[in-house]
Amino acid sequence: MLLSADLRAALGAVSTATITTILLKKGIRRAFMAGPKPLTNFPRLVGPAFTMRFIPAREDLATPESWASPRSTRAAIEDMPEGVIAVGDARGLTEAAIFGDILVARMKKRGVTALVTDGTLRDGVGVLGTGMPVWCAGVAAPASVAGHTFVGWQEPIGCGGVAVFPGDVIVADGDGAVVIPQALVEDVAKLGPEQERFENWALAEVEKGHPLPGLYPPNEANRARYEAETKKG
Amino acid sequence: MLLSADLRAALGAVSTATITTILLKKGIRRAFMAGPKPLTNFPRLVGPAFTMRFIPAREDLATPESWASPRSTRAAIEDMPEGVIAVGDARGLTEAAIFGDILVARMKKRGVTALVTDGTLRDGVGVLGTGMPVWCAGVAAPASVAGHTFVGWQEPIGCGGVAVFPGDVIVADGDGAVVIPQALVEDVAKLGPEQERFENWALAEVEKGHPLPGLYPPNEANRARYEAETKKG
Amino acid sequence: MLLSADLRAALGAVSTATITTILLKKGIRRAFMAGPKPLTNFPRLVGPAFTMRFIPAREDLATPESWASPRSTRAAIEDMPEGVIAVGDARGLTEAAIFGDILVARMKKRGVTALVTDGTLRDGVGVLGTGMPVWCAGVAAPASVAGHTFVGWQEPIGCGGVAVFPGDVIVADGDGAVVIPQALVEDVAKLGPEQERFENWALAEVEKGHPLPGLYPPNEANRARYEAETKKG
Amino acid sequence: MLLSADLRAALGAVSTATITTILLKKGIRRAFMAGPKPLTNFPRLVGPAFTMRFIPAREDLATPESWASPRSTRAAIEDMPEGVIAVGDARGLTEAAIFGDILVARMKKRGVTALVTDGTLRDGVGVLGTGMPVWCAGVAAPASVAGHTFVGWQEPIGCGGVAVFPGDVIVADGDGAVVIPQALVEDVAKLGPEQERFENWALAEVEKGHPLPGLYPPNEANRARYEAETKKG
Amino acid sequence: MLLSADLRAALGAVSTATITTILLKKGIRRAFMAGPKPLTNFPRLVGPAFTMRFIPAREDLATPESWASPRSTRAAIEDMPEGVIAVGDARGLTEAAIFGDILVARMKKRGVTALVTDGTLRDGVGVLGTGMPVWCAGVAAPASVAGHTFVGWQEPIGCGGVAVFPGDVIVADGDGAVVIPQALVEDVAKLGPEQERFENWALAEVEKGHPLPGLYPPNEANRARYEAETKKG
Amino acid sequence: MLLSADLRAALGAVSTATITTILLKKGIRRAFMAGPKPLTNFPRLVGPAFTMRFIPAREDLATPESWASPRSTRAAIEDMPEGVIAVGDARGLTEAAIFGDILVARMKKRGVTALVTDGTLRDGVGVLGTGMPVWCAGVAAPASVAGHTFVGWQEPIGCGGVAVFPGDVIVADGDGAVVIPQALVEDVAKLGPEQERFENWALAEVEKGHPLPGLYPPNEANRARYEAETKKG
Repeated sequence: MLLSADLRAALGAVSTATITTILLKKGIRRAFMAGPKPLTNFPRLVGPAFTMRFIPAREDLATPESWASPRSTRAAIEDMPEGVIAVGDARGLTEAAIFGDILVARMKKRGVTALVTDGTLRDGVGVLGTGMPVWCAGVAAPASVAGHTFVGWQEPIGCGGVAVFPGDVIVADGDGAVVIPQALVEDVAKLGPEQERFENWALAEVEKGHPLPGLYPPNEANRARYEAETKKG
Repeated sequence: MLLSADLRAALGAVSTATITTILLKKGIRRAFMAGPKPLTNFPRLVGPAFTMRFIPAREDLATPESWASPRSTRAAIEDMPEGVIAVGDARGLTEAAIFGDILVARMKKRGVTALVTDGTLRDGVGVLGTGMPVWCAGVAAPASVAGHTFVGWQEPIGCGGVAVFPGDVIVADGDGAVVIPQALVEDVAKLGPEQERFENWALAEVEKGHPLPGLYPPNEANRARYEAETKKG
Repeated sequence: MLLSADLRAALGAVSTATITTILLKKGIRRAFMAGPKPLTNFPRLVGPAFTMRFIPAREDLATPESWASPRSTRAAIEDMPEGVIAVGDARGLTEAAIFGDILVARMKKRGVTALVTDGTLRDGVGVLGTGMPVWCAGVAAPASVAGHTFVGWQEPIGCGGVAVFPGDVIVADGDGAVVIPQALVEDVAKLGPEQERFENWALAEVEKGHPLPGLYPPNEANRARYEAETKKG
Repeated sequence: MLLSADLRAALGAVSTATITTILLKKGIRRAFMAGPKPLTNFPRLVGPAFTMRFIPAREDLATPESWASPRSTRAAIEDMPEGVIAVGDARGLTEAAIFGDILVARMKKRGVTALVTDGTLRDGVGVLGTGMPVWCAGVAAPASVAGHTFVGWQEPIGCGGVAVFPGDVIVADGDGAVVIPQALVEDVAKLGPEQERFENWALAEVEKGHPLPGLYPPNEANRARYEAETKKG
Repeated sequence: MLLSADLRAALGAVSTATITTILLKKGIRRAFMAGPKPLTNFPRLVGPAFTMRFIPAREDLATPESWASPRSTRAAIEDMPEGVIAVGDARGLTEAAIFGDILVARMKKRGVTALVTDGTLRDGVGVLGTGMPVWCAGVAAPASVAGHTFVGWQEPIGCGGVAVFPGDVIVADGDGAVVIPQALVEDVAKLGPEQERFENWALAEVEKGHPLPGLYPPNEANRARYEAETKKG
Repeated sequence: MLLSADLRAALGAVSTATITTILLKKGIRRAFMAGPKPLTNFPRLVGPAFTMRFIPAREDLATPESWASPRSTRAAIEDMPEGVIAVGDARGLTEAAIFGDILVARMKKRGVTALVTDGTLRDGVGVLGTGMPVWCAGVAAPASVAGHTFVGWQEPIGCGGVAVFPGDVIVADGDGAVVIPQALVEDVAKLGPEQERFENWALAEVEKGHPLPGLYPPNEANRARYEAETKKG
């Protein structure tokens, strides 16, 4: 689950938009999560997925007492390595939060890079106060036990309609969060920065007044011009 | 996960409507699954839950090849004991089926009592042809790999917004499917038949022209009358 | 709230499809309820609306005990005159039923013409057994207290996205249920049968091979022909 | 847009479930329409798509008067060749029907094979009475002008979340309706019957008690056995 | 419906997150409204609920003329006492606003504390300009008559899936809005501040590096430590 | 499709809230789009609609290669006259964006006034960086080909549940976007400013403490007072 500093840096320079396009060209159409959005402005963040799984609440299971159980969100958090992005499968349910400020503060303390969920968080103001970057489907006051039963961590999960396995890599930015299957991480890290470079050049061309056809995607002439202008020297 | 013949018989005489009311009185409000409906008319059926878990499809995972993997629906089916009710967590997704007629036929052959899912089945006509009683959210032609990745069996799951653990008991009838938490099975088996007896008496009273207030729920006089009429001799 | 036998007979000969078209020509676009469908085949039925209002359940309010309160569904049912169509505002919530077989049996006994709701019923088999025609959004086992608090009857309500006032007239058939504002009942009863007569003639023409343009809606020639053929003698 | 009798016969022997699997293997994951279901039991039907496009109603456009316009559903119907399957893009809106019994009767008269829509029909009983096989998202009384403006035919459309072009081929059966891109029709007609033959053999094996692993999908031994048993002679 | 200054102050110091937890421990799981969110940043606000009820629009009822009727939103607003929180049941419909800037300005003038609705407001910029704190499901330009018929005030309503009775107390903050049943207001006002005190202590402990297990919820040792540290002196 | 500077200026002074009310009085209830919201604060903008139509993606159609086709979004953008408001029919699908920053930058360069869609945009930060005012249903990273096939421009479309024809006029502000049917543009431009003048007067009256009944809508006395105070001199 280690992610080298080089890979982390390379991916941090690639937008989620570009990553989804690269994955699409490799046949992966389901990578972008529906639901998680940044709660406020955060920089782009990258990390291996640390998964958490919730199922629906049942009154005999989801009680304040369950918070002290060994199979609790508390235990999961204490098991999170530094640098991961925690991903919580809330089945898209927004009526009850999966975490509040105290748990998020502990994650921050443990060096977790970000928290991503297709559910909600509570104590929204407090969560922002912890400084932890969070991507979620909004805020809601009720505690997790009002809607969720926590059942385990580092299992395969779904989040926002996308499969996430421990060891996959998450990239999150202003557009939302994308999962890169573990086997494709190096490919994306290689192709992404080049694609960004081209998009920046194309955007600059547009700003100079160049029309789109033949530019984006580039025809041969523009491809050659791009290469001449950007690769020289 | 055994369910004695006595318990099975007792629960088979209690409607899912009555079971939800008994569970409600015991504080369990989330027991009835949203989604699963009988695909045609079936008798009421009872069995311990055998759970199956699916997460969203991803093109690198959910392929026809995955059907031969050891962590496949095929392996899960071969592990099902006689008399269970298989419960498939499809996250309510109806665009791709979890099973078609061949897999359902094998379940039938193995003595599975019923199949319950908040997703869909394919080859609907073929599925009915197997004789297996199924409760589902309809039919859809696409194979599971078009929408689902199978990740395991006999884990805690959600189905239709309800938590289901292996060992819980499922009862399914014309209204749909309900889960009885394992610890409450004996209570429900004890209280249910008596409640049904009272409801039958009350219905007969209504048919004789008795008004509802004081009858259902019964005031003391009607409670006494019911007991005199039904318990005597 | 009386509906004369003549009006009842006239409206009983007009489909809900035709009624929505007549209302549309009078500027009423919101008359057909989304949600209520016949639970099995029933004949077309007509009656003044008897409204019932539910709000969301709250655990301190919606208890089995509340069933004996004077502001209960039981009291509402005992207040229903013969010949009404009871309309239950369930806010489109399908997770908990508003009624089961015993209450429906009592409504049948009191001469209620039909029950219409944008929610669900429980004991579906039992409800059909009472012989009461019901239009609903399906069946679900949980009792009303699991999702609803009953708050009153003969108030203005919404049902299936449509406003219903006591005294409006409901017509329900295979397509679903429509509300006719009280002030328009006589107009619909006058225009409807004539519109049905024309539609039957047009359908017969189509079956004879007549193309649609100029027939439906009719141009002057076809209008004249229709009148000649149907009104003569 | 012609579909030879051979292709029609070949495809008529292949279930929509099998077709979606074949398309999936060819990289097409979006072919099955969400929404259209058979209104009653119909045989499997095949035909080239004849598309119809609706946009939302606007009170100045969608009036009973518009039914007589040259750009009307009437004109579209008169343009339908024999043997097509008419496909109506209703944007999944179920509150207003796209057609009633008179228009469907005319389609039947013109030899249209079936009508498929992600919207609703009105006069449900009358529609069934025409004998036209229809796949739809249910019935609703309001006329199309209450929710739709008809804007054209034989244009590319969406239906049930799937792109449909004139000339694509539609197959509809008990599971619903699938679109085969025109360029893939011959492939599907070639591969489908063989796949059905294998599935029938596998189902028979299951009924004889054969377990699933190695059978479906078949390992080499079972593949050989299948070929020996079914291809001999 | 009076709310003493003491109760108001006590509740104003308790987050909606904490209130839902306290209510959950008392068996109330349905108290947090789905839908209403603060339109911009507002402080936490507290007040007794003043309810308003809307049903769906019907073209003969919901007209600009209806705004002058005695049963109008205008009359309701003139009946609002100072210090209440107005709660509008819009059935979750977001297509038409319940109020615009002029009505909200009048509410502000009358000393209303806040406006909460599961529907939308119009003239969003103007509404913010009035200075009235509003919790709503967003903004939409159409007037209420385009989607709603106002039918009364100070009746039991649903809002965001939650029952609200006149006299219940509303608390709204950054997470959204919660209803406290009247009978539980004093309990919440007593338990809430203590719970907040503990949460603040736990958060400070987390920030010092204390792990979660045994801290939140506290084991005996931590409970004792908390009491020693916070209650002494 | 020209819109005179006078009409543009007149409409620019009328809020979308007021426009929907004027249209409602003229019988148009479906004019406000559900979905498009300003991505950040923009001034009110006005322009004739330039429509773009997307249908669902199909893997054989919606590929990166299609971006270079003559029937591409690129060609549509090069066809946009200065001053139009581009309106993209994304069928409300939010999982894949219709445009990213490069295409939006080109639209800005061409003098397009604004972009309105019921779908999403990608590269949200980049889009804001272009300075183009956009009204959309949020942001999402996946490219259009992941969810959409572009099929044409300047055709009738639906957007946010509303019909839009080339030549209709769009007005967008903080509340969202409204379409004015071409035939009603002059009427709205005439009635709108007067209605705004009255609303401003009424708001000022409210701020002076005037109660609502008789003021908004005005009775004869207040109407006279308004006219005296605002029209004098």
